[in-house]
Amino acid sequence: MRMYDIIKKKRDGGELTKEEINFFIEGYTKGKIPDYQASALLMAIYFNKMTKEETINLTEAMIKSGDTIDLSLINGVKVDKHSTGGVGDKTSLVLGPMVAACGLPVAKMSGRGLGHTGGTLDKLESIKGFNVNLDINEFTQIVNKNKLAICGQTADVAPADKKLYALRDVTATVDNISLIASSIMSKKLAMDSDAIVLDVKVGKGAFMKEIEDAFLLSKEMVDIGTNMGRDVVALLTDMNEPLGYAVGNALEVKEAIETLKNEGPKDLVELCLNLGSWLLFLGKKVKSIEEGKDKLLKVLETGKAYDKFIEFIEAQNGDSEYVKDKTKLPQAKHILELRSEKSGYINSIDAEEIGKCALILGAGRETKESSIDLSAGIVLNKKVNDKVENGDTIAYIHTNDLNKGKEVVNKLKNIIKINNNRREKKLIYGIVDKNGIKKY
Amino acid sequence: MRMYDIIKKKRDGGELTKEEINFFIEGYTKGKIPDYQASALLMAIYFNKMTKEETINLTEAMIKSGDTIDLSLINGVKVDKHSTGGVGDKTSLVLGPMVAACGLPVAKMSGRGLGHTGGTLDKLESIKGFNVNLDINEFTQIVNKNKLAICGQTADVAPADKKLYALRDVTATVDNISLIASSIMSKKLAMDSDAIVLDVKVGKGAFMKEIEDAFLLSKEMVDIGTNMGRDVVALLTDMNEPLGYAVGNALEVKEAIETLKNEGPKDLVELCLNLGSWLLFLGKKVKSIEEGKDKLLKVLETGKAYDKFIEFIEAQNGDSEYVKDKTKLPQAKHILELRSEKSGYINSIDAEEIGKCALILGAGRETKESSIDLSAGIVLNKKVNDKVENGDTIAYIHTNDLNKGKEVVNKLKNIIKINNNRREKKLIYGIVDKNGIKKY
Repeated sequence: MRMYDIIKKKRDGGELTKEEINFFIEGYTKGKIPDYQASALLMAIYFNKMTKEETINLTEAMIKSGDTIDLSLINGVKVDKHSTGGVGDKTSLVLGPMVAACGLPVAKMSGRGLGHTGGTLDKLESIKGFNVNLDINEFTQIVNKNKLAICGQTADVAPADKKLYALRDVTATVDNISLIASSIMSKKLAMDSDAIVLDVKVGKGAFMKEIEDAFLLSKEMVDIGTNMGRDVVALLTDMNEPLGYAVGNALEVKEAIETLKNEGPKDLVELCLNLGSWLLFLGKKVKSIEEGKDKLLKVLETGKAYDKFIEFIEAQNGDSEYVKDKTKLPQAKHILELRSEKSGYINSIDAEEIGKCALILGAGRETKESSIDLSAGIVLNKKVNDKVENGDTIAYIHTNDLNKGKEVVNKLKNIIKINNNRREKKLIYGIVDKNGIKKY
Repeated sequence: MRMYDIIKKKRDGGELTKEEINFFIEGYTKGKIPDYQASALLMAIYFNKMTKEETINLTEAMIKSGDTIDLSLINGVKVDKHSTGGVGDKTSLVLGPMVAACGLPVAKMSGRGLGHTGGTLDKLESIKGFNVNLDINEFTQIVNKNKLAICGQTADVAPADKKLYALRDVTATVDNISLIASSIMSKKLAMDSDAIVLDVKVGKGAFMKEIEDAFLLSKEMVDIGTNMGRDVVALLTDMNEPLGYAVGNALEVKEAIETLKNEGPKDLVELCLNLGSWLLFLGKKVKSIEEGKDKLLKVLETGKAYDKFIEFIEAQNGDSEYVKDKTKLPQAKHILELRSEKSGYINSIDAEEIGKCALILGAGRETKESSIDLSAGIVLNKKVNDKVENGDTIAYIHTNDLNKGKEVVNKLKNIIKINNNRREKKLIYGIVDKNGIKKY
């Protein structure tokens, strides 16, 4: 078998066999196939697409390229949740304790990643002492005891995907549904959870800008997972404006704590109720989505979700005083205010642009080596469709660098648009599961 | 400017600007742009094609990547001829002396290359002492004196093309008309000849298998040259069966000498008359193609072309006794015969397969490091449409390795097909010049 022939076959519209895909992924992971042949194939895939079977075989080959994670020692049905990523997305911090408080084990391995803010691990490190480096035994024990643990990825999961993604990123071959789906799913399926709930973000601040593309991607991911014997459900959720009000690591932790105390932003709560009820349903803790939502609302109202969060933080050596007294969390030196210069309704708050502003303030990483300012970020005071009067505060800018803070204030003036009328907005666009697509 | 954006633009169907193409070619030649980005762009070009303007800009950028060759010290109109390559193609050896004998200067720089037989330089080295390593001054002086010199390429012509071609070769991105045309023309146009006659081969033994593709390629090359102020004409000529009878280095030299003595194969003579008359016409030595053919026929009949060849060989230190007594040329130890096992008409002699047989015998190079057996090769005794009786000799196999010789005899039995009827065959399919395409 020659890589040349594989490239040519895909270039000419052929369907690659399982053997050809394995040859490519194995050879590429081991460095036997050079980047320049891989990128030519990726571009041919971009143009000629991959069939469902090719996509499934690619996913399997990427899983086989590295370690898989055995969760068999965890009691009960194992469910996992994955978000394709958005701005202000602190969902895991809220959803984990909510679902665990309902009795479903949550064994979550998370990343740090590049972007506008840190990942879930970075955010949790706002809490003094919190340990994200658990080995698989500690991790399993904590989940069995408390139903909730979140730690970093230590195993070498899907190294082929890591290498391929880095190549796609610099060769303009990211934007292909099959490649995106297999990339996400190879990492998720390397963990042997029984069910997966995918939060597929759509809109200005998401990777998927168009709703139709997001449905296609969701269908592809659900089909891959179903084919591999997992229960997979994808919810398509809005990412035109940031989720909740806070964007920034410690700021998001603070908002997560408020939410767990039943004082959270409407959209974040609604999202957690939806994702959480699907997790409970697939985890066989409830018989319907409605029952799931009721149960989840109850753990918020009774404080059980908040208690679970305290327990979780302590189990991983975090100082729970940081949760009980939020002023202990990292604080920025300066808080600037953006005030409205006219009256009307907030028409749009482009999430991607808000993310870029957070990055300017130091809340995220531009390269793997960058350090993060956990205290920096933006807290919106208004959301889309909120009424504003001239002079009202629209957002607070938390920064340790006054110049950058001022730069962001100026940028936000153009990013946050005010209009005379309210507009339609929606949080959930639809659901995809093995039975098909349901659009809302 | 970022290479990523250039790839993405082409991927999305955009037209690259002159600046973008220059950025790519300069950066790639200097090693600042990695192979994996170049191959992704090449595959995007494969799918989305290049406009005429892009192709012209690419050609210019590749010319600028290296040295150009100044022929201004050569007296008269400078014409050049280039063949896209075929099996048994000894045209340059015959055409050079014919045209020079008509008074037109022929300053030819040639290559060695990979393939079924050596290049023109290898073939000439069958003649003892022949020196292909002339510097530009010696080269110019000989041309001004004798009207004919052939030497190797010493200048670093179009290094970008060399590097890109090597990449295309392993990434299945060779087959694109714009890339092929710019690759050929960048090398030709780096020499400041006034006019260029292209011999575009079509058929089983040629790079271009389909006549329509060959017309497209010819048009593209003519347009590139015309745009850069050169007179360019392309003749589309047959390469389904080998040209002439001989395939192999010394064997082809022998056939070239016979042709210069006016005892050459019909197809080779006809091709030389056509290409030569265009060279004379563009070189302003004749007023019409017909006049050119008459003039060329005359130098064959009077022996002037042959005398010019002797003069040319001697001027470059070759021992002309090797020309006068062809038995001095390298001779293989064994000559095997392929005999017909039935009666009928030769229906086809797949040129590509014959080329592969020559390679088995050692007549060509598989890698740059391979050495060539100058004596080895195949001499056909019949051409397509010739009548054969059972037992007639169809071909002679010249070899120094009896086993390989026998292997080739067996292969030829399947390659040379015999049928009951004659078929249509054509030598020249058409001509393309700045006025357009003429199909014959």
